[in-house]
Amino acid sequence: MSYAQTPAGQLNATFAALADPTRRAILARLASGQASVTELARPFNMTQPAISKHLKVLERAGLISHDRDAQRRPRRLEAKPLGEANQWLERYREFWEGSFQRLDALLDEMKAKEKKHRKGPRR
Amino acid sequence: MSYAQTPAGQLNATFAALADPTRRAILARLASGQASVTELARPFNMTQPAISKHLKVLERAGLISHDRDAQRRPRRLEAKPLGEANQWLERYREFWEGSFQRLDALLDEMKAKEKKHRKGPRR
Repeated sequence: MSYAQTPAGQLNATFAALADPTRRAILARLASGQASVTELARPFNMTQPAISKHLKVLERAGLISHDRDAQRRPRRLEAKPLGEANQWLERYREFWEGSFQRLDALLDEMKAKEKKHRKGPRR
Repeated sequence: MSYAQTPAGQLNATFAALADPTRRAILARLASGQASVTELARPFNMTQPAISKHLKVLERAGLISHDRDAQRRPRRLEAKPLGEANQWLERYREFWEGSFQRLDALLDEMKAKEKKHRKGPRR
């Protein structure tokens, strides 16, 4: 399925939400299954209000959701915006693949020179 | 070529830099070739200092670079951090593909129901 063009506001919110290591770790945790706020707070050595702040950012960006009725209100990963961010980045694939290819070529060249240098004195 | 694990600080900087539509547009512009600050400022209807601020954010994140010696100091796209951000997102591919598959199934179901509904009165 192809995406329609993602609105700028959604991409802004997604990328801003991902710019924090705790929020990225929360998403990683939720990728292994839904979890309550208490369960999410535990590994981070953070207060529940601090975690709740991060959860709000993730929720506003549409990256997580929760069931309003369930008492534990477990949080769930909502991956659609991640797919849209990925699609935005994909347009640049030729560039990073290009730069890695150049880096590979440079490393090969350096290794070759080093080998030559090492062999030199033994002759 | 596979990447080593990207440090959290780099991912923070990359995602934060991408969370702004002007900065994303600057990267899109640079994907079609290097450009001076003046050239970059033109399409955005922004002052040069405003553009320079955005360029500094992009530069600190390692997403652009410039030749110090050249008089025009044209900016160049540096795509490696985009590749690393893409790689981080790729871990969630199964989730967004899963959710799109569910959405596709839902749309198919809705279309089928609509068809049935339309055909109904004609019988």
